[in-house]
Amino acid sequence: MSRRPAIRPERLAARLARFAEIGATPRGGVNRQALTEGDRQARALLADLALARGFALRQDDAANLFLRREGGDPALPPLLLGSHLDTQPTGGRFDGALGVLAGFEVLEALEDAGARTGRAVELVSWTNEEGCRFAPGAMGSQAFAQGQIAPEWREARAPDGARLDDELALTLAVLPGVLLAPLGSPIAAYLELHIEQGPILEREDVPVGVVTGIQGTIWLEVTLTGQAAHAGTTPLDFRRDPLAAATRLLAALHGEVMPSDPQARFTVGRIEASPGSVNAVPESVTFTVDLRHPDAARLAALEQRVREAAMREAERARCTASFRPLAHMPPLAFPEAMLEVIETGAGRAGLPTLRLISGAFHDALHVARCAPTAMIFCPCRDGISHNEAEDVEPRFVAAGATALLEASLAFLERAEMGTSIETRGAAMRAG
Amino acid sequence: MSRRPAIRPERLAARLARFAEIGATPRGGVNRQALTEGDRQARALLADLALARGFALRQDDAANLFLRREGGDPALPPLLLGSHLDTQPTGGRFDGALGVLAGFEVLEALEDAGARTGRAVELVSWTNEEGCRFAPGAMGSQAFAQGQIAPEWREARAPDGARLDDELALTLAVLPGVLLAPLGSPIAAYLELHIEQGPILEREDVPVGVVTGIQGTIWLEVTLTGQAAHAGTTPLDFRRDPLAAATRLLAALHGEVMPSDPQARFTVGRIEASPGSVNAVPESVTFTVDLRHPDAARLAALEQRVREAAMREAERARCTASFRPLAHMPPLAFPEAMLEVIETGAGRAGLPTLRLISGAFHDALHVARCAPTAMIFCPCRDGISHNEAEDVEPRFVAAGATALLEASLAFLERAEMGTSIETRGAAMRAG
Repeated sequence: MSRRPAIRPERLAARLARFAEIGATPRGGVNRQALTEGDRQARALLADLALARGFALRQDDAANLFLRREGGDPALPPLLLGSHLDTQPTGGRFDGALGVLAGFEVLEALEDAGARTGRAVELVSWTNEEGCRFAPGAMGSQAFAQGQIAPEWREARAPDGARLDDELALTLAVLPGVLLAPLGSPIAAYLELHIEQGPILEREDVPVGVVTGIQGTIWLEVTLTGQAAHAGTTPLDFRRDPLAAATRLLAALHGEVMPSDPQARFTVGRIEASPGSVNAVPESVTFTVDLRHPDAARLAALEQRVREAAMREAERARCTASFRPLAHMPPLAFPEAMLEVIETGAGRAGLPTLRLISGAFHDALHVARCAPTAMIFCPCRDGISHNEAEDVEPRFVAAGATALLEASLAFLERAEMGTSIETRGAAMRAG
Repeated sequence: MSRRPAIRPERLAARLARFAEIGATPRGGVNRQALTEGDRQARALLADLALARGFALRQDDAANLFLRREGGDPALPPLLLGSHLDTQPTGGRFDGALGVLAGFEVLEALEDAGARTGRAVELVSWTNEEGCRFAPGAMGSQAFAQGQIAPEWREARAPDGARLDDELALTLAVLPGVLLAPLGSPIAAYLELHIEQGPILEREDVPVGVVTGIQGTIWLEVTLTGQAAHAGTTPLDFRRDPLAAATRLLAALHGEVMPSDPQARFTVGRIEASPGSVNAVPESVTFTVDLRHPDAARLAALEQRVREAAMREAERARCTASFRPLAHMPPLAFPEAMLEVIETGAGRAGLPTLRLISGAFHDALHVARCAPTAMIFCPCRDGISHNEAEDVEPRFVAAGATALLEASLAFLERAEMGTSIETRGAAMRAG
């Protein structure tokens, strides 16, 4: 390399501000849900930036968008950096975009320095990490890891009525000249920078979180069905009210699950009564349950508890309960050698690190199936995310991008010395 | 009159079946919500039928549609019969349509018999009785009684985004040749046939219910607002979860209000979490409350109880509560003289009667402000309504229409003898 590559914090900050304009909300957040017009605009802008710097572009059937800075041997699998550009409906400016734009900054830093790497370094923007319009989340990285899009996903409908397959086609069509490559090209390793979305790093004032793994997640859609009836005339003993049953059930679960286990997370983010008339007892009530736990067995036990309680409350109200699994991501531990790569890189830049588990799932969870993977967490203000008030201090943005660059360089050095890293929780093998 | 007018049950049954085709649902019900395309089709069909029999048509600004069979003295205020043609989203074939089509059958029976009445007999189909798309319900009859459409109603938006004023204009345009008359033309009296929507008449096997009054109704929209947060990372003590608060509140109210007072009705028909992501603690939860009671003071106390409980649970969850009144209809008693008119008519046809209070509100509640009013109830199967399974035995349809015809004749006789009836709860005055 001609000189040591370095992050330019002001360039990265300007990029984050520019992307936050796409889907900007009046309260300073971003609404750029997956496969919407805003998401397409953000991809198109990223593609423009790539072309301006001479990086090669490709996309796959899941509309994952790859930027490639070529290395000395094009046949070697690349180091992949990445995250996502889609957001929650009332999301923030950093969740996802930080990882993509810091990754782009790493590619630019290499380019600015005229760095020659033995293998290519690539950046990916994964499709539909948030899963708001189409479940499950992290759809693009899952499709990448599986080598295909699950057929049932293609027919999925967003709450606004759009069909996933149609939205994918529209999104791919935004970049008509870009090569359409098969899903799941080989990679040497994957590194993702992301905001912590929790309060720990900020509280400890540590700029670089070394993520040891990701807690498991189960998404379940529960429907209680009773009988629609007139609100004014139907006496209590004639009612089979699924809303009365659902609220009793959810009040009980809110009162039990998290209070009895600080590691557990129980969230109901969506609820709807059908037909939804002010003056009719609903026929059915549907809600989602988001369950998380670092321990696989306890996560499974939580799901069982929710299902049993739902059936019990339904029966009590002469209703029925049905369940639709929306997602199941078991807990994951990242390979020790990848954690060391990050710690080595951060150490060279003089950045303190802290090991911690991720409360949120990420694309890295899926990519970890096919390559050594790890994540860097960046502190965010008050642990707030999935919220327009989400914020990251400029010094932490710069530190995160620097850690990503240095971890990338550390990985490339080891890889070029012939050191290989196993994909799951393994120690480094001698080269 | 040349011969005694008589209902033709097979003609009425065929009409009910024909109208049930408009907005028919796969499960045998009807989805013909107010001011939708289906509602417009039903009005257009009724207008066609009127023209075929030579009845005059007019509509008003609220899109109430009037059919007039002229009487001996066009200057006398008419006897008005009516009900509504709109339905719940998963409604039945009889709620509303029975009263309109039985009323039309009465006009036809008079016409078939060449009956000469001293004053005109009119039929009205009121706009938006159900209130599903636009609150409040019974909008057309309220506008008629008030002589104007409340300005705030005009800007109301349906859940599907449609604006009331636009929908009214589209609906009026369906019958371009029909006279647009001012709201609130004078009437001598109002009679409405409707299904009971409760279990009493069927249980007692009585074909004709004489409705003594209507219980009071309050509709309230409640919003609890907390803070959106990430489902996976946010510990319990960082959460301000409005859904946890709402379900606790509603579980408590469901467990208290109706069990402690058999005359009270408490129904939550609509609930929604915003932004509605599987993996985010909601920022807010909005639900409707439908409260009913025959006693005005106890109805007001119920509302107070709901508001206080909501504020208490919101505070407990570090959320806020806000309230939007959607409707308030105080309890009403119909004039004794009008009840006697129905009992006299039913007696002449040999039909047993039973006096009962209405658990549902009806257009008659509002029309009662400007003219002597009463209602006839028809038994419905299992008391089921606001449901696709709603049903009425053919013998009860025929009996209800016969009672409506005979009550109309009884009223016309008294009116032509110069007997007048006061509007509210008063006895008849000697003519």
